Amino acid sequence: MKPVNVYVLCVLALTLAWPLDIARAMEEPLPSWNNGPVKKSIISFVERVTTEGSADFVWPSERIAVFDNDGTLWAEQPVYFQLQFAFDRVKALAPKHPEWNKNPALKPLLAGNMKGFLAGGEKALGEVMAVTHAGMTTAEFKQIVTEWMMTAKHPRFQKAYNEVVYQPMIELLHYMRANGFKTFIVSGGGVEFMRAWVEKVYGVPPEQVVGSMGKQKFELRNGKPVLVKLPGVDFINDKDGKPIGIQRFIGRVPIFAFGNSDGDHQMLQWTAAGPGARFMGLVHHTDAEREWAYDRKSHIGKLDKALDEAVERRWTIVDMKQDWNRLFPFEP
Amino acid sequence: MKPVNVYVLCVLALTLAWPLDIARAMEEPLPSWNNGPVKKSIISFVERVTTEGSADFVWPSERIAVFDNDGTLWAEQPVYFQLQFAFDRVKALAPKHPEWNKNPALKPLLAGNMKGFLAGGEKALGEVMAVTHAGMTTAEFKQIVTEWMMTAKHPRFQKAYNEVVYQPMIELLHYMRANGFKTFIVSGGGVEFMRAWVEKVYGVPPEQVVGSMGKQKFELRNGKPVLVKLPGVDFINDKDGKPIGIQRFIGRVPIFAFGNSDGDHQMLQWTAAGPGARFMGLVHHTDAEREWAYDRKSHIGKLDKALDEAVERRWTIVDMKQDWNRLFPFEP
Repeated sequence: MKPVNVYVLCVLALTLAWPLDIARAMEEPLPSWNNGPVKKSIISFVERVTTEGSADFVWPSERIAVFDNDGTLWAEQPVYFQLQFAFDRVKALAPKHPEWNKNPALKPLLAGNMKGFLAGGEKALGEVMAVTHAGMTTAEFKQIVTEWMMTAKHPRFQKAYNEVVYQPMIELLHYMRANGFKTFIVSGGGVEFMRAWVEKVYGVPPEQVVGSMGKQKFELRNGKPVLVKLPGVDFINDKDGKPIGIQRFIGRVPIFAFGNSDGDHQMLQWTAAGPGARFMGLVHHTDAEREWAYDRKSHIGKLDKALDEAVERRWTIVDMKQDWNRLFPFEP
Repeated sequence: MKPVNVYVLCVLALTLAWPLDIARAMEEPLPSWNNGPVKKSIISFVERVTTEGSADFVWPSERIAVFDNDGTLWAEQPVYFQLQFAFDRVKALAPKHPEWNKNPALKPLLAGNMKGFLAGGEKALGEVMAVTHAGMTTAEFKQIVTEWMMTAKHPRFQKAYNEVVYQPMIELLHYMRANGFKTFIVSGGGVEFMRAWVEKVYGVPPEQVVGSMGKQKFELRNGKPVLVKLPGVDFINDKDGKPIGIQRFIGRVPIFAFGNSDGDHQMLQWTAAGPGARFMGLVHHTDAEREWAYDRKSHIGKLDKALDEAVERRWTIVDMKQDWNRLFPFEP
């Protein structure tokens, strides 16, 4: 059989397969999102940038989508989950460190006096991070995070923390990837903390996670190389740091960004500044019943200036209560 | 026509196309590599980790391959190309900076006195980097690098610097990607300098380039966000820094690594330390006729301790003169 016949058959097969494709495309994407202007704004953007011949068409290599994590992909109340991990870790390690009972930063925490701990401010927080996030190899730390994820439970939902993720956003991650986007997490959270679990939960591989970083040291231990996590912060991927983190790790300006707080403000501005079609989205926590309602006055996930700019520039604002028919995967 | 018939036709078409695929696969890969143990070691490794059912099989998501740049993917003599860029830039900017003629670091350089400049050591080098790599936005810097690439010529080959790249390594990058590997550059060079041109030349997208980094600042200029490159180094991705850079940017241990100097030693050790099948390769510059011959005593691309360990642990060592039948794409 001559090669040309193979091509003829291929073209024929593809032509006949066409109706199947259309049927698949007609399945409603993003089922946990209610129909309305928000869902429509996402789908319309994706269709515009992926339709060849459209004025807004973007080549797949440039389809970079960035997502904040805390409060955008998973919940962040009553306290940032990584901070809870650190608190739990202090308690778990305390028996081996009797000296911590004399440490002004750690003592109130061990006594369950959260108000007293918080009075210690950033210094106390730094101390907690140093004793829980340093002094082990990167492989050991990954193991510690993995075990915590398997055992710790969120106080309100009584589920593992990595189950307290937003179902609509997981659908959105899949939808973006199905449309040729490369999805990145760009979070203030620690990059080593996130990479221990995000691939399984979000389908985002470690090399597409941008986050805050501590110092590290390369060492040969009995001839075997290890990376040791040291106390001391090297890079904070929050606020002004987010565009810098994006530039450093990704090196392209995203065309799609989703956040939920003022910590994401500069990331959204940076995304909006590029040429061509752009999508900027904010998750607004408006659902006190199914989750929490907070914005301008919250200590965690404060959303104030970014909300003003989003309204002014007509960025997409998700009203969680109204726009999401399902919040968590564990809901019936 | 019923859907089942579409499948029948598809299967039929694919079956008939099979011989074409086989013919393509039988084309010898890596044509610029001479047949011999080195080429064989690469192909045998790739076949082992990509054959399902093989004891050494590795899932595509874990197929991370890292490549040094200077001296591994492109040449690095008579002086690192990025340094030449900095020198050229000092000369280009000098007319606007009469004060540089009084600057002890820059004066010898402007007078063409390279020995005098080198006597200034790291301090003088830092000064050159500060005045050429800072004080502009990231977008402006990209433009400057792009223009230099289009105009500057390598002194020996009289070609643009990004043509003085190793044809066998470009074939290797393609071959690895064709086998499901994600290829990363992990270089001591500046990440912003490389990203300006590597995608076109190597097919490596910006988000897969790990390198040294300077400080940056996010700024709104008339409401438009920019990232400004500041003087001061933030991270040196060389020697001990390479495993740290890999951990930070990629977050997985590579299974395949190629370097050419002691600056790549720890990256090779780190790659070798992981479980399962591993490939560690060194380009040994042995070809004074077509390029340069240097190793243990060279100031640029010194290869000494890594060479000893490579011999001892039977890592793959490319003898450039013997193993490569073609060095540069511009050769006839």
